[in-house]
Amino acid sequence: MNIKTIEWKNNTIKIIDQTKLPGELRYLYIRDLRVLWRAIKELKVRGAPALGAAAALGIYFGIKDSKAKTFAKFSQDLGRVTKYIATSRPTARNLFWALERVCGVAVVNRHRSIPAIKKLIFAEAKKIIAEDRAACRRMSSFGARLIETGSNILTICNAGALATVDYGTAQGVIYRAKEIGKRIKVYASETRPLLQGARLTSWELKAKGIDTTLITDSMAATLMKQGKIDLVLAGADRIAANGDTANKIGTYNLAVLAKYHKIPFYIVAPESTFDLNLASGKQIPIEQRNPEEVTSLFFKRPIAPKGIKVYNPAFDVTPSALITAIITEKGVIRPPYKKNIKRTLAT
Amino acid sequence: MNIKTIEWKNNTIKIIDQTKLPGELRYLYIRDLRVLWRAIKELKVRGAPALGAAAALGIYFGIKDSKAKTFAKFSQDLGRVTKYIATSRPTARNLFWALERVCGVAVVNRHRSIPAIKKLIFAEAKKIIAEDRAACRRMSSFGARLIETGSNILTICNAGALATVDYGTAQGVIYRAKEIGKRIKVYASETRPLLQGARLTSWELKAKGIDTTLITDSMAATLMKQGKIDLVLAGADRIAANGDTANKIGTYNLAVLAKYHKIPFYIVAPESTFDLNLASGKQIPIEQRNPEEVTSLFFKRPIAPKGIKVYNPAFDVTPSALITAIITEKGVIRPPYKKNIKRTLAT
Repeated sequence: MNIKTIEWKNNTIKIIDQTKLPGELRYLYIRDLRVLWRAIKELKVRGAPALGAAAALGIYFGIKDSKAKTFAKFSQDLGRVTKYIATSRPTARNLFWALERVCGVAVVNRHRSIPAIKKLIFAEAKKIIAEDRAACRRMSSFGARLIETGSNILTICNAGALATVDYGTAQGVIYRAKEIGKRIKVYASETRPLLQGARLTSWELKAKGIDTTLITDSMAATLMKQGKIDLVLAGADRIAANGDTANKIGTYNLAVLAKYHKIPFYIVAPESTFDLNLASGKQIPIEQRNPEEVTSLFFKRPIAPKGIKVYNPAFDVTPSALITAIITEKGVIRPPYKKNIKRTLAT
Repeated sequence: MNIKTIEWKNNTIKIIDQTKLPGELRYLYIRDLRVLWRAIKELKVRGAPALGAAAALGIYFGIKDSKAKTFAKFSQDLGRVTKYIATSRPTARNLFWALERVCGVAVVNRHRSIPAIKKLIFAEAKKIIAEDRAACRRMSSFGARLIETGSNILTICNAGALATVDYGTAQGVIYRAKEIGKRIKVYASETRPLLQGARLTSWELKAKGIDTTLITDSMAATLMKQGKIDLVLAGADRIAANGDTANKIGTYNLAVLAKYHKIPFYIVAPESTFDLNLASGKQIPIEQRNPEEVTSLFFKRPIAPKGIKVYNPAFDVTPSALITAIITEKGVIRPPYKKNIKRTLAT
């Protein structure tokens, strides 16, 4: 199955409405900047690289009907449009990178006519799209070499075709590994609150014939302890100069778990995700979203594709080495537990 | 607010139907063993200590109309009832502990008349209920001493009044800490798939006037990194002789995170949760539940109480020290990142 997340077609942006998945594969045809802004805000289109493509096309939407006759006037229009798009979502670097890149083209060509600059802006947006397609395939090839056949891979959120123009970053590595004949099995963590892992990644992986099992985010630790995870692959929304990486909430959780269980933890992302102006992750702005995303379960729509495999243990076991004390009605029991449990319960 | 999770009243078991919370506080009046079995299986009543109480009363339901005239016959009836209750849920030790304890009373009193044995069984069930109320208060007092005023406490699942007869284990510690004048703030992790943290714990804590913020399970790591969690309190379903503890899926996850962030991680549980016949947690049977719990919403009912505080960051930041490599279209970047990111992106 060929997934085209964002496409330019007959003067419209054609996107998959990702809030309708996995129940329905519905396309939206966008001809207006405000509609695009809302689509970004409401996560109809999401994923850092896809947001870069959307932002670039958004600029073209915003300025193509500009009546400006001078570059000074045009520059004002361009600035307004850019600022507006920039208010949609704050964390993904790619969105700002695309805005800066397209604006840069305008500035460099300021001596040309306004119609010519508009054409160059449009060409740059299309170039960003073409480059994303190529970059995803390249990084996926690099990543696939790191995957041994027979590997079990844990993923978070969606960093697949639906997060990029058409192929994926972290899930791209999985697709490429499969293409070159490696046997792989994926555990997709559902990724609360908005369930991109359940709704999008497990749908995508299933559509592409990858052996996929859906888990809740809280089950990852147990799978690692059982030796069922060989590596973790995650995408990124912004990477600081020192490598600190912002990605979907829960990624840090998996990184700590991977370190504890001595499992490799890979970030897969294009150059456009790096923000070398930030020395470390502490400076990355983190979007705070609507409480309703937590207090309700994704708008009463289906939250996983039909027939997806599920792992659903009700409990897990915490080794006593991780427990500070066990508080009982007979007293507080501290290590060494074997001796002290017996002694305390005997009283 | 006084929460009575399980009560014996006019020859019926009165329980709160926990699948209706937080939308509705509805009671069920159970007079039949099969209805009780289904209530346990469907989590209308849940929580290890509450299951102990339910199982004990269940035995009485199962044998009170026994027509047996001899102890041999009565013992067969008792065995059938016990086996049936034991098939409801496999992990919580308290359920089996209660069955063994009540059966023990029958065996010890085998020389008495059948009606007398029935009375003793009923008395033992009521004793188990009374003991749970006392034990919860005692362990909560022990636990509350460990809590400094101003503490931020992270919880998982529900180990409160709704998991016991009327007070709680892990949440009991919170209630007791408040009673003795300690200022506390609680982060309740929602506990997918069945959202006991969102539906039950945040409802309970809010009803009792505790400052509570609801998070998804994946957010715990970020709160710990930010220094916002001072300790973790969890209940238990079964504790092996060496202290290894089975509890709701996701507990092990929090224990690893707590260790990594050097935060105390406490288990709060009564003696009836210990299983000294098991040398370690490896032998604890783990219940596997229906995949639909993961792939569907919680029966389309409200999943959190109205007005509950929520923390909902869309992203988190993973320090580069936890990242094995960053895979880009320009190659695979490994530590030291600051140098190698610059070098790779410059090519």
